[in-house]
Amino acid sequence: ADPAQGRELASQCRTCHGIDGVAKIPIAPHLAGESRIYLETQLKAFRSGKREHEMMSVIAKDLSDEEISHLAAWYESIEFSVTLPE
Amino acid sequence: ADPAQGRELASQCRTCHGIDGVAKIPIAPHLAGESRIYLETQLKAFRSGKREHEMMSVIAKDLSDEEISHLAAWYESIEFSVTLPE
Repeated sequence: ADPAQGRELASQCRTCHGIDGVAKIPIAPHLAGESRIYLETQLKAFRSGKREHEMMSVIAKDLSDEEISHLAAWYESIEFSVTLPE
Repeated sequence: ADPAQGRELASQCRTCHGIDGVAKIPIAPHLAGESRIYLETQLKAFRSGKREHEMMSVIAKDLSDEEISHLAAWYESIEFSVTLPE
């Protein structure tokens, strides 16, 4: 898996999830720093129909295992930090 | 929705997702800063069976709409920031 290739592929994700994994719209999750295993599992679940979403089911259908792997590597590679509310 | 009540309820989420929304195990997603609408939609999908996961399907089954709302408000309230890899 190659994060750099994943970043290129992420051009098709960016409208909703951001190239940096920070979601642009409330119905889409942030992806920054999510683990490769989680991201790969979800993309494969959308591809197989196990998980359904009107947009993601269409997008995932055309992704190869290798592309999924690159995409997951890209979003995993983004570091994030959190601040709890007071 | 009350983030403070959500934080209390999140004691049942923390083993996997962290009280701060930073996942403790790779198969669980980070939840920090995810939108209320996304979190509520997913919890309700697990509850109804539309989305399935061996752990989450069990957990969500016992949550009321109000509890889901509090939980989502808690995790949404956590700020996060990202750093892109060089």
